[in-house]
Amino acid sequence: MKELTLFLEPGSKRKLYEQIYDYIVAEIRAGRLLVGERLPSTRSLAEFLSISRSTVDLAYDQLQAEGYIEARPYRGFFVCHVDNLVRIEPEREREEKPEPEPKVPFQIDFSPNGVDMSLFPFDTWRRITRNTLNDDRLELFLPGQPQGDYSLRHTIARYLHSARGVQCEPSQIIIGAGNDYLLMLLRYIIGEGRAVAMENPTYQRAYRLFSAMGFRMCMIGMDAQGMRVDELAASEADVAYVMPSHQYPTGVIMPIGRRSELLRWAAQKEERYVIEDDYDSEFRYRGKPIPSMQASDHSGRVIYIGTFSKAIAPAIRISYMVLPEALMERFHSRCGFLSSTVSRIDQATLNEFIGNGYFERYLNKMRKYYRQKHDLMLSGIKRWGTNFIVSGEHAGMHLLVTANNGLSASEMKLRAATMGIRVYTLKELTIKEESIGLPAGLPVDRTVVMGFGGLKIDELRAGLRILRSCWKNS
Amino acid sequence: MKELTLFLEPGSKRKLYEQIYDYIVAEIRAGRLLVGERLPSTRSLAEFLSISRSTVDLAYDQLQAEGYIEARPYRGFFVCHVDNLVRIEPEREREEKPEPEPKVPFQIDFSPNGVDMSLFPFDTWRRITRNTLNDDRLELFLPGQPQGDYSLRHTIARYLHSARGVQCEPSQIIIGAGNDYLLMLLRYIIGEGRAVAMENPTYQRAYRLFSAMGFRMCMIGMDAQGMRVDELAASEADVAYVMPSHQYPTGVIMPIGRRSELLRWAAQKEERYVIEDDYDSEFRYRGKPIPSMQASDHSGRVIYIGTFSKAIAPAIRISYMVLPEALMERFHSRCGFLSSTVSRIDQATLNEFIGNGYFERYLNKMRKYYRQKHDLMLSGIKRWGTNFIVSGEHAGMHLLVTANNGLSASEMKLRAATMGIRVYTLKELTIKEESIGLPAGLPVDRTVVMGFGGLKIDELRAGLRILRSCWKNS
Repeated sequence: MKELTLFLEPGSKRKLYEQIYDYIVAEIRAGRLLVGERLPSTRSLAEFLSISRSTVDLAYDQLQAEGYIEARPYRGFFVCHVDNLVRIEPEREREEKPEPEPKVPFQIDFSPNGVDMSLFPFDTWRRITRNTLNDDRLELFLPGQPQGDYSLRHTIARYLHSARGVQCEPSQIIIGAGNDYLLMLLRYIIGEGRAVAMENPTYQRAYRLFSAMGFRMCMIGMDAQGMRVDELAASEADVAYVMPSHQYPTGVIMPIGRRSELLRWAAQKEERYVIEDDYDSEFRYRGKPIPSMQASDHSGRVIYIGTFSKAIAPAIRISYMVLPEALMERFHSRCGFLSSTVSRIDQATLNEFIGNGYFERYLNKMRKYYRQKHDLMLSGIKRWGTNFIVSGEHAGMHLLVTANNGLSASEMKLRAATMGIRVYTLKELTIKEESIGLPAGLPVDRTVVMGFGGLKIDELRAGLRILRSCWKNS
Repeated sequence: MKELTLFLEPGSKRKLYEQIYDYIVAEIRAGRLLVGERLPSTRSLAEFLSISRSTVDLAYDQLQAEGYIEARPYRGFFVCHVDNLVRIEPEREREEKPEPEPKVPFQIDFSPNGVDMSLFPFDTWRRITRNTLNDDRLELFLPGQPQGDYSLRHTIARYLHSARGVQCEPSQIIIGAGNDYLLMLLRYIIGEGRAVAMENPTYQRAYRLFSAMGFRMCMIGMDAQGMRVDELAASEADVAYVMPSHQYPTGVIMPIGRRSELLRWAAQKEERYVIEDDYDSEFRYRGKPIPSMQASDHSGRVIYIGTFSKAIAPAIRISYMVLPEALMERFHSRCGFLSSTVSRIDQATLNEFIGNGYFERYLNKMRKYYRQKHDLMLSGIKRWGTNFIVSGEHAGMHLLVTANNGLSASEMKLRAATMGIRVYTLKELTIKEESIGLPAGLPVDRTVVMGFGGLKIDELRAGLRILRSCWKNS
């Protein structure tokens, strides 16, 4: 909790509560009170200033009404996210953001990137971190292996084998600070001048990164099974980036037949590769999970990428890449001189977390929780009748809703926004220059993306209730 | 500490102590006992196995003699570094290493990359990490800003201003997991197809990274003041990478005059930049520190890079880059979509460590300690007489020794190695394809690099004593 060094001027024209208000706003704007910081309780601040508690209440009410701070039940008042960030950053930073945030904060944000941390075993994570640091493990402060520490790679190899059927030795695993970084490394491993095929629509960030790295981009159409291999074969691409477990943003789950077709395409020529981004593979809600493509790759053509950012916490910057054996030599000669990007303390903590079964338990709990949200979304939208079609369901943390009652996606978004609800048009989540198509011929212009991962059950219920009425035929 | 699940076979041909030995070797080779792990004490293992303690002693002695484990006074037995790593990695990984480690481990390694952690305030670091995790700061587990968290950038800006005269706003700082990563980002910011000038000889890793990124490399000669600006101006380079505080590996400290020349060169044409890697700037032992080049850059041409890996701990993967304001727009449009590579918990911990003055105190302590080692090296080698010339001193954690008695650098290295001492020829630390020159006309072929950062005072004394006798005229 922050101590405030606030002095009131009893004789001033400004009322006492306004002085408190001014002071705290100035502290927030100057960055001395930071996002998430807890303010003193109204009681303790009143005591400190020798004024009545209701004066402090008044100031806090005003701050809360204007979005500077928020009350959390039983916990106190905290400096808010959005407003603070927008205000303390210098003007030009805000202007450079491609899409400025709307002024009115959304009450319910169906963001496809939301993650629910409410069941995260913070105490366990804290305890493991503490033990790691207490263990007299001085070597954790010394440089580690460029690929990541052997013990963590060993643990990840075992986990991937049992959860995703991935066949690999710890020596084929490269640990890095996020998927972006690993894709940057990959550029040096597979070499420049490649033509990369991506599903259309696809994951914007990977698209932008590949473009920035100078790859030629081939956008390949999708059908209900995912990337069309006939289009792929007709393109100049020699690398295909796919998300077979739950494609982003369409939510398509690639069936085994299509996976085999892709593997055959890769095996047909030297130096062809499939980058399997195993996005959302941890969260499948119906049927048996399909093993990774890497599991059935006998030609050493699959580069497998996954992350703990979604399954554990976005701020845990640890991803992993499994390379075919034949590419390891290139990794060592071209990237082996680079230091690891992940702190060894974090590696050791994660290693304990997985190795001692906490990760598995947490995943199972979360899968159940996310399934509950998923089912609620599905049944809720189905009750709206045949005017709304759901697709991309059964996995991950988002689904697509297509309107069949004449509403366009941007109208849906706008109407929702007036009610404090945020949904995303499919178009805004994809690369703008390209014309995209949706599997099963669903009209792109009438489709919105709704994520449910970060919302509470109550918020989902409330959100669906409001959307139902504001998306009614007008 | 590891529990061993070891069962003895009393009737076996193998003696009891050999069975213990075999078991532990197998555990280490299989990776079930990892580097740095503590073994049970001889007493507790003897009790557990119901055998005499001297039998366990015998097994541990054998393991120790063969380099599998090491005894640390008052602490116990630990699984060793080198041997373990070499053994548990599959065969091919070892083969790919460019220079395989010699079989006999060096007793005293004058590595230029050694860092001394003996004075590191582990307790403070632990406490801060603990508090960070205990503080109910849930937001630390959520995604942060791509540039790094504002509070840490703010703290770094203040630190750089007071310690290095750097003029910048927090908005110009980018935090990343290591210098390598930041240089990778920089490639997207300054654009491809650049010609990069480096000092010759220079820092191998940066050279290899720039080459891998497709930059054309211009190796520029050095004189006693550093990179020769006349050569630079005659080259096609439009970016110059320099280490003015203490050049690696030559140890040259660039005086103010040369810095100004470089800044003038950069200002002469659009899109010219100087990358100032402020390597070793924290450790200067004589005279006043020279402010960074960034401090006197009025044309927005200096890209300033620094790291906490050396000043705090190699495993703390946090570096920073200060961009000229004009480049920030390019950062936001070209890299702003990438997630930060540093965990927010680590950022918050570091922020506390610097913000509460611990970093400054630690730096001052370390500067004193490293100076003591530096002075010992200097005075020790001076006593060898005029046959040995020291250069690159007065800063950092390494210096150069040139032999004037007919010995070549590789002979010096070889003779030292037979006595269990490791020194580095200047050539092995630089890019092999290039012919290099040393300032002040010192002969490269007779020059070795000796780091002193990671060695204890006693080891330095012993090492110097041995080297003196083994480098005598033969």
